[in-house]
Amino acid sequence: MASKRYLLTPGPTPVPPEVLAAQAEPVIHHRGPDFRAVLVRVLERLKLVYRTDHDVLLFTASGTGGFESAVVNLLSPGETVLSVSAGNFGERWTKMAAAYGCDVQQLRYEWGATPQADDLARRLEETRARVVFLVHSETSTGVVADVQALGAVVKEAGALSVVDAVSSLGAVPLETDAWGLDVVVTGSQKALMTPPGLAFVSVSPAAWEKSRTASLPRFYYDWERTREAQGQPNTAFTPAVSTVRALDAALGLLLEEGLEHAQARHVALGRACRAGAKAMSLELYSPDEDRSAVVTAILTPEGIDATELRLALRDRFGITVAGGHGDIADRLFRVGHIGYVDVFDVTTALSAVELVLVEMGADIERGVGVAAALEAYEAAVRV
Amino acid sequence: MASKRYLLTPGPTPVPPEVLAAQAEPVIHHRGPDFRAVLVRVLERLKLVYRTDHDVLLFTASGTGGFESAVVNLLSPGETVLSVSAGNFGERWTKMAAAYGCDVQQLRYEWGATPQADDLARRLEETRARVVFLVHSETSTGVVADVQALGAVVKEAGALSVVDAVSSLGAVPLETDAWGLDVVVTGSQKALMTPPGLAFVSVSPAAWEKSRTASLPRFYYDWERTREAQGQPNTAFTPAVSTVRALDAALGLLLEEGLEHAQARHVALGRACRAGAKAMSLELYSPDEDRSAVVTAILTPEGIDATELRLALRDRFGITVAGGHGDIADRLFRVGHIGYVDVFDVTTALSAVELVLVEMGADIERGVGVAAALEAYEAAVRV
Repeated sequence: MASKRYLLTPGPTPVPPEVLAAQAEPVIHHRGPDFRAVLVRVLERLKLVYRTDHDVLLFTASGTGGFESAVVNLLSPGETVLSVSAGNFGERWTKMAAAYGCDVQQLRYEWGATPQADDLARRLEETRARVVFLVHSETSTGVVADVQALGAVVKEAGALSVVDAVSSLGAVPLETDAWGLDVVVTGSQKALMTPPGLAFVSVSPAAWEKSRTASLPRFYYDWERTREAQGQPNTAFTPAVSTVRALDAALGLLLEEGLEHAQARHVALGRACRAGAKAMSLELYSPDEDRSAVVTAILTPEGIDATELRLALRDRFGITVAGGHGDIADRLFRVGHIGYVDVFDVTTALSAVELVLVEMGADIERGVGVAAALEAYEAAVRV
Repeated sequence: MASKRYLLTPGPTPVPPEVLAAQAEPVIHHRGPDFRAVLVRVLERLKLVYRTDHDVLLFTASGTGGFESAVVNLLSPGETVLSVSAGNFGERWTKMAAAYGCDVQQLRYEWGATPQADDLARRLEETRARVVFLVHSETSTGVVADVQALGAVVKEAGALSVVDAVSSLGAVPLETDAWGLDVVVTGSQKALMTPPGLAFVSVSPAAWEKSRTASLPRFYYDWERTREAQGQPNTAFTPAVSTVRALDAALGLLLEEGLEHAQARHVALGRACRAGAKAMSLELYSPDEDRSAVVTAILTPEGIDATELRLALRDRFGITVAGGHGDIADRLFRVGHIGYVDVFDVTTALSAVELVLVEMGADIERGVGVAAALEAYEAAVRV
């Protein structure tokens, strides 16, 4: 196997060397002034990235743990919740709420579909759910939903929105307060350019209000305990101190670049990846639109196995892209371009895809993918 | 403030440079062969440290999250559980089970007491609890309980033991299988010499059996989901890949040293710390016995404030020790000597304590603490 590695999955994502270096600093005590300064800065920086003035809670857990905190703090056993699902993560939140004994109603689409505000309004009318689960970026399909429109429908109905923004926050626009999103969950390991191990959850005043009457049992993920500790400033339990330090460095880099610049970069990377794929005559699975700036899902030419392609990329060239699912698993592969990624990561992926596909018998004009990608990128950043 | 730092708390603990370096390696994908090799090795190495042939489950969470997995996988709402408590952590597990709606019975001691097998047998008889929470090393007081004897009583009664071994596993002897302990919980950040962020849970066949009828809701901490994923080998959710790599390096170092050697080293460090404190005429709060090999709790001379001492150590010399609790908080301080610690860390702590205490008016003959500590250490390792 090649010794050099290229991580182009939709998460975990590559991490800047400064962030890895921060994570390698000696361990410090979580109740002392050295760590407190880092924690205070991280919580402030998270608010800037979330575009919120409300609380952002920090948990030592994966993003799934962060989402679970929303379930147990907002809901009661048997309570109706509406889960909007069009892929793997939507289905995970459905299963999670069911495991907690909630009455889970669904607005369920085929994988790869884009949830529509009208459908949501109708299902909210039918179910009278007071809590709605939304997925911003469905990494399993590459679809980024219009959470602004969906969130507005939820608000209109007087319900609370819980948004899975694990792979989107920091990559595509998300305005927690301005869009009236009640709970937004993300993780450290995607656009926030930090190793996995931390989850973050913003909580609106309305969500705090609802949490006071929610009776599902909770301890580790209890919001109130977490907020009280963060106010000290402190954490309720021993946090992943090294990863918090890494996050501090990463958020510094992200805010230095500027949130809008980072989002524009992701739009340009998405355009480049799609242009390259199309130039190679590959069919796009994720929508060909600017919101698809997180991960590009692509179909192999008919008769060429996507798993074989992925294994060749990985085992011969050290390039990791993600696979597909369901009845098109044998033709789907996904290139992540989230976080610490530039256009040459995208062209590396496209180059290797071209190389392997041609070997596997595809009819692709050599070099067209990279050329088209660079052209699209240049046009995007010139504007 | 001094720029050099000495971390002498009972956790997080200092981490070897090799472990920090491993944590700084580039992020890899959690579903690829690079990570799978690390995961398989870590799970095998954990079994060696746990001294078990059964499953050890890995969670991205603090040790508290690991303990919560035992609560939600073993218990049903309203079910009786017996919590043995003689300090902060025992009380935490009591509160946790209460938050989950269990009928929590207690065997409760004054903080600093050592739980006794006879008391436990009596309370088990009275309560008929089928699940018992035990704390191996109560870091808030420095007491290490005789978990072998306590576990035997639990087994005798046909109940299941859940052992908080967060600060003990790897430092003091713990024989998961030979002592018949059903569930043993630990974290990465103590004797396992890794930054915080991972929790581990061993599960006996009897505990698996009980988990099948336990009806508390669970998703993130679900044992069966976790075991199934680990069997792939995989993880149910994105794990803290960098911390798992760090753990791999740390477990390698621990097993290279040898578990018994590491335990003997902790005994020697405990003796050294106690001998030093006694030579300075300081009163020990934690028992003066070899099992107290994790953290030494010490009282300041009457009239000298322990918080003032701790702040001086920290702010003037960069030395972090832990504080006390309750009605003796103003006289208690705790020196951790867990994991990547040698005798010179202990003498550094004692030297600085001497320096500050003398300044604060204590009558201590200069140098006697360090001399006694080295002597005790030498005698211990010579045997």
